[in-house]
Amino acid sequence: MVEPMSLYRRAPDIWRPFDPEVLDTLLADFEATAAARDEAGGTAKRERDLIRESGLLGLSIPRDLGGLGGSIGDVLTVTRAIAAVDSALAHLFAFHHFQLATLQFYGPRQQWAPLLEETARHNWFWGNALNPLDKSTRITCGPDLGEHRINGTKTFCSGATDSDMLVVSAIRADKPGLTVAAIPTSRDGVVVHDDWDNMGQRQTDSGRVSFKDVAVLDEEILREPGPLGSPFASLRSSLGQLILTEIYLGLAEGALAHAVAHVDANGPAWIAAKVATAGEDPLILRNFGDYWVQTAGAAALTERAQTQFQAAFDLGPALEADERAEVAVSIATAKVAAARAALDVSSRMFEVLGARSTAAKLRFDRFWRNARTHTLHDPVDHKLQELGDWRLNGRLPTPSFYS
Amino acid sequence: MVEPMSLYRRAPDIWRPFDPEVLDTLLADFEATAAARDEAGGTAKRERDLIRESGLLGLSIPRDLGGLGGSIGDVLTVTRAIAAVDSALAHLFAFHHFQLATLQFYGPRQQWAPLLEETARHNWFWGNALNPLDKSTRITCGPDLGEHRINGTKTFCSGATDSDMLVVSAIRADKPGLTVAAIPTSRDGVVVHDDWDNMGQRQTDSGRVSFKDVAVLDEEILREPGPLGSPFASLRSSLGQLILTEIYLGLAEGALAHAVAHVDANGPAWIAAKVATAGEDPLILRNFGDYWVQTAGAAALTERAQTQFQAAFDLGPALEADERAEVAVSIATAKVAAARAALDVSSRMFEVLGARSTAAKLRFDRFWRNARTHTLHDPVDHKLQELGDWRLNGRLPTPSFYS
Amino acid sequence: MVEPMSLYRRAPDIWRPFDPEVLDTLLADFEATAAARDEAGGTAKRERDLIRESGLLGLSIPRDLGGLGGSIGDVLTVTRAIAAVDSALAHLFAFHHFQLATLQFYGPRQQWAPLLEETARHNWFWGNALNPLDKSTRITCGPDLGEHRINGTKTFCSGATDSDMLVVSAIRADKPGLTVAAIPTSRDGVVVHDDWDNMGQRQTDSGRVSFKDVAVLDEEILREPGPLGSPFASLRSSLGQLILTEIYLGLAEGALAHAVAHVDANGPAWIAAKVATAGEDPLILRNFGDYWVQTAGAAALTERAQTQFQAAFDLGPALEADERAEVAVSIATAKVAAARAALDVSSRMFEVLGARSTAAKLRFDRFWRNARTHTLHDPVDHKLQELGDWRLNGRLPTPSFYS
Amino acid sequence: MVEPMSLYRRAPDIWRPFDPEVLDTLLADFEATAAARDEAGGTAKRERDLIRESGLLGLSIPRDLGGLGGSIGDVLTVTRAIAAVDSALAHLFAFHHFQLATLQFYGPRQQWAPLLEETARHNWFWGNALNPLDKSTRITCGPDLGEHRINGTKTFCSGATDSDMLVVSAIRADKPGLTVAAIPTSRDGVVVHDDWDNMGQRQTDSGRVSFKDVAVLDEEILREPGPLGSPFASLRSSLGQLILTEIYLGLAEGALAHAVAHVDANGPAWIAAKVATAGEDPLILRNFGDYWVQTAGAAALTERAQTQFQAAFDLGPALEADERAEVAVSIATAKVAAARAALDVSSRMFEVLGARSTAAKLRFDRFWRNARTHTLHDPVDHKLQELGDWRLNGRLPTPSFYS
Repeated sequence: MVEPMSLYRRAPDIWRPFDPEVLDTLLADFEATAAARDEAGGTAKRERDLIRESGLLGLSIPRDLGGLGGSIGDVLTVTRAIAAVDSALAHLFAFHHFQLATLQFYGPRQQWAPLLEETARHNWFWGNALNPLDKSTRITCGPDLGEHRINGTKTFCSGATDSDMLVVSAIRADKPGLTVAAIPTSRDGVVVHDDWDNMGQRQTDSGRVSFKDVAVLDEEILREPGPLGSPFASLRSSLGQLILTEIYLGLAEGALAHAVAHVDANGPAWIAAKVATAGEDPLILRNFGDYWVQTAGAAALTERAQTQFQAAFDLGPALEADERAEVAVSIATAKVAAARAALDVSSRMFEVLGARSTAAKLRFDRFWRNARTHTLHDPVDHKLQELGDWRLNGRLPTPSFYS
Repeated sequence: MVEPMSLYRRAPDIWRPFDPEVLDTLLADFEATAAARDEAGGTAKRERDLIRESGLLGLSIPRDLGGLGGSIGDVLTVTRAIAAVDSALAHLFAFHHFQLATLQFYGPRQQWAPLLEETARHNWFWGNALNPLDKSTRITCGPDLGEHRINGTKTFCSGATDSDMLVVSAIRADKPGLTVAAIPTSRDGVVVHDDWDNMGQRQTDSGRVSFKDVAVLDEEILREPGPLGSPFASLRSSLGQLILTEIYLGLAEGALAHAVAHVDANGPAWIAAKVATAGEDPLILRNFGDYWVQTAGAAALTERAQTQFQAAFDLGPALEADERAEVAVSIATAKVAAARAALDVSSRMFEVLGARSTAAKLRFDRFWRNARTHTLHDPVDHKLQELGDWRLNGRLPTPSFYS
Repeated sequence: MVEPMSLYRRAPDIWRPFDPEVLDTLLADFEATAAARDEAGGTAKRERDLIRESGLLGLSIPRDLGGLGGSIGDVLTVTRAIAAVDSALAHLFAFHHFQLATLQFYGPRQQWAPLLEETARHNWFWGNALNPLDKSTRITCGPDLGEHRINGTKTFCSGATDSDMLVVSAIRADKPGLTVAAIPTSRDGVVVHDDWDNMGQRQTDSGRVSFKDVAVLDEEILREPGPLGSPFASLRSSLGQLILTEIYLGLAEGALAHAVAHVDANGPAWIAAKVATAGEDPLILRNFGDYWVQTAGAAALTERAQTQFQAAFDLGPALEADERAEVAVSIATAKVAAARAALDVSSRMFEVLGARSTAAKLRFDRFWRNARTHTLHDPVDHKLQELGDWRLNGRLPTPSFYS
Repeated sequence: MVEPMSLYRRAPDIWRPFDPEVLDTLLADFEATAAARDEAGGTAKRERDLIRESGLLGLSIPRDLGGLGGSIGDVLTVTRAIAAVDSALAHLFAFHHFQLATLQFYGPRQQWAPLLEETARHNWFWGNALNPLDKSTRITCGPDLGEHRINGTKTFCSGATDSDMLVVSAIRADKPGLTVAAIPTSRDGVVVHDDWDNMGQRQTDSGRVSFKDVAVLDEEILREPGPLGSPFASLRSSLGQLILTEIYLGLAEGALAHAVAHVDANGPAWIAAKVATAGEDPLILRNFGDYWVQTAGAAALTERAQTQFQAAFDLGPALEADERAEVAVSIATAKVAAARAALDVSSRMFEVLGARSTAAKLRFDRFWRNARTHTLHDPVDHKLQELGDWRLNGRLPTPSFYS
């Protein structure tokens, strides 16, 4: 019940994998330049390198493979903390680990263990080129296993720029479903377009990647169990949804924390108020109370979902379909609440800050722009429909890339 | 992530204090007659006796004093479960244990231990006559310790009817603050008026109790540390707030569960829908999803608050002021969320049930009437103001009978 | 911008059809007994007779047919005023005129003019037995025109009890659509069941009417143009929707007016407020402001819809389909806003009135119970869907009994 | 009931003062460049000149003084139409006429008539330097009437850049209240700083103006009746509030119209929907219906307030205090509703447009940024408090620069 960001410092057991000072230093650095970088957009090369140097790219890699040995929960907690100061960098950080987890969800240990080990050794930063809704990238598989070729262009490839490795999806003409592979970004024929220029999440580099006759080795394809190939494999979608949830929550907490930090509580109250200072105005206090209740509710649901996800993840391939469904419901619930909290607090924070808080240099609108952009990943209304179907009809969410 | 009420059955460790069948039987019985008793109002004598017979009046009494040895958390969990079927009975049950806790908050062990022991032995049901806002009841203390006398009338005395013991508050002319005492309801001069007739919480017997020259023994007065006499003593107010919170949450869960049970999912959809059955209508599913997200958010906050409260309660008199404040903030947060969920779901449940669900015999409006009545205990707006003051100004809630 | 109810007194031109004192007297009488009659339920025989005696049953009947010569707009304005004190009586009053209008929508002048004249002469009170969703009432038409027979039972027949005339709908086995006829309630075989007992709108007598071999004369059937037989005929559905809208609006205004009248503005503010009286508490004032803005928005939309409806009604059979659609959109818009205002203000009024306002004798919950019951007539969500379809796709509402 | 913007074309009597083609041409031009100019910020010199050339700067100037002879209502209607495509230009346009009205509110006819005549003759564009909350600009008045001098700096001086004339306020050391004067922007010592760079309303040039020993002639001071000097004079504040209201409304209507225009209704629905196209998705249609109801409610209130304002304005100095108060209440009501509609629709429009609508080049976030910035002019919460005080306590709004 203290400042959201210091919360992480209070729980020493969370930080066993690394020195909390490392994160604090990153957060302070990111905060100092967040407004300027939001304006600039483009690739946060310096900050990506700071993340590389921090060692946190190895957070979710087991110690015996050269990583820090943290849990997925650790990754999510750090993601939330970064999101409170810079939700674009939070997305890049989380999506790196999301790709590492994807290897584990879709492939066997003998395939992912060496990749994680290499990642730790070379401090690789992974990017995303797996967009299930984008059907234009196709893979052709020759008779010889070395002759797979990918062609086409993918959109929304977060973190591809400046990445070392990519997880890429493609469609085969001769069978349904996605083929997913892990390849070096430097592979011949891969072109990462620096063409992400959106109103929010501006430094996520979520632009296009095009593939021209890109060779894919057979051992680079994740096919056991492959995408949605088992309850555990489909838990990858749950992790994607949970990462979004943590970022929304961080955005809500960040917006609230910035409102607290910047409101002029000792300044004069509005002329129609019967109190001396803004900090004593019952209407302002009521607003802060309201932002808090919303944010805290989203936090409680998210933390619960995170705990449930961790337990499911720890089960590994033993995870059953109905256990996976329970986690999916819990995450969907938290996601709706966090999306609403992020949108509401980031828009309403101005009501306590007043007209001068709209100065462009403050860029306080970035919280709303980031929340608004990111919460469109998949429709909240359809998430509600899915939850209603579960609650009313007892229908478990059908595993998909969004459920 | 299953039916709220079966949730309790899934957690075997919660039920160590008693056989879960006992509660299930009570819940089924209360549910069967809830509508009829809501209509009748008055004293639920039969159900109070069922509670007596169940042994649950001893739930929070330590085993060595003859009770079941359950925790306050057990009481709260049972309260929430009862509230989902009958929030008036939940209030009576919770307020009995609230009085037992009050003895422990305001008095020393040598005073409360015998009272708890007697309670277990005689299966006493305790009622409330402690209303801090009601200034009309006064106590005069003579030079001789046996000459204390209470005169006046108190309102909102929940559970006084059919009670064996009362916790009563009164004001002294010669010093500030409340004097609180525990006396038998049968004491000469005590008249319990059966005059509670309100639109909701109809069987809580929250009517008036009048006192005419009622003798109070010195040892019946709780004065070490007395009301608000220490951080631990003021935790009594937190428990009162948390009991309300659990009841609100139970009401929200009960309203949702009844909507699920009574919607005709296989019946025809509204003529303008493009689907065959009501249970497939996206707009109905979206509503159910919405009720669920609200209810789940309140549940997550309430469970967290309950855990924090239990930890603080277990500290006993060692509890520090700032620890108590953290608990108060957590409970206040949950209380606002639970109040909103209860009001919203109980009003909106009709949107999925349709016009025929307004038949008087169903009395589905009881969820809203109960929520509306109970959530007026103290103003939600002022709770938000208090939370805002804490979040913005870092001001800890000042212990009072409502904070 | 004054008390909603006195608004009607300020507009002298509205009242040309009758002496405003007549309405004021009715309103004061209804208000005095509204709580008691809400408790009693059943038929408001005395109040129905007061309406009869007031002459207002002839309000919408042209002067040359013996009526007061008021407009439909006059009927709606009176309906709204009555709804602010008793929405059940408002419904009975409005539905009487709704039946008179139905004759004009569905039949030719030579058919309805004599009926209106008889109505004025005998001071008939009309009731409703036209429920398009209720398929169990059937009409068989013999070769001889005098041999039509109705059999079956209809539900939701508002105002049938104590009525003199009924508009009844039935289904023919040999052709689609509804057959609608106007018959005396005393016709052999008609049985009005006094079985309406619902949580709200308790004195609308909206119970069942059963028909056993009830003879219907050919000239009693409204078949030129018949139900939905022309744009003007389908304007009858619009009037039904607008009547609901006016009642919802009256409920919102009534709830607000009762909150204003009953709040103890000079009483002490809540203990945590920094002001002396409740009437100065910024949080209470903000709530009142909020109720007002919602209610005023619904009023502005409803008044606009009423004006547009009147213009369309005055066009008579010359009304074009797209003109009718514009009116339908305007009414649907107002209906959603008025439903929301009624539900919100009637539930939230307690937040400014406090716990003592839940005393059963006050029956302040009747505003919410009435609003909740009446707003389920047809689903608000589907009304929104229809409006969205119009706004996005430019699709005009398809005339039906609900659009 | 058609596209909001074509609404103006349907009402020929509104356009008597000028050829509607003139406005249509302006709107089309502004729309085409709105996104680019929102990005650029700074002074919309080209568009200001288009407004100059359109003749619309003379819209509110009587014909006998060389203007178009339109009403204030005409100005407001045009403001709303412009705001739907560019709310910054709408503000500049409205504030020009606001200054002309200020002359008439605060000065006698012999003072303002020549100024309006000159304005028409030279096609002057007026800017604002009247900010009542900004106390740092002071006027000293010498014994000789020609020796008034203004010194200091004002903030939020909308439209000062590229203006020909300014209305400026200053404080006198020797008496309370504001001194308001009309002076040429080119007067020695006036420096208009082009330093407005805010997140919204980016081309309103609402930066600072500094005054260094600026001479003010006695006849340039508006002192009969002067600021707040009479009910009619204080109607100037009402006009300011109404201009904001019209702009908020235009923003809501513009956001909705852009959502309609850009949603891919024939494109595929979301994968979880049971319909083929997005335009048939009930959840999307429901959202559009919701945006519409909110916007229409704000429109109905605003149009009513506009009519009442016009009537009050037409009364001139004969306006009574309570008549002025009624107008103020009506405008405050509309303002709250319009602010909410603008904020809600501009944020939620993305829910129907989807993730690709966040592309920076579309700049659809400008509706929210403009609404968010502009609705902070004065706090909505305090407006609600004022309305509550009127509705509960019957207290008329005290005339001020914000009420």
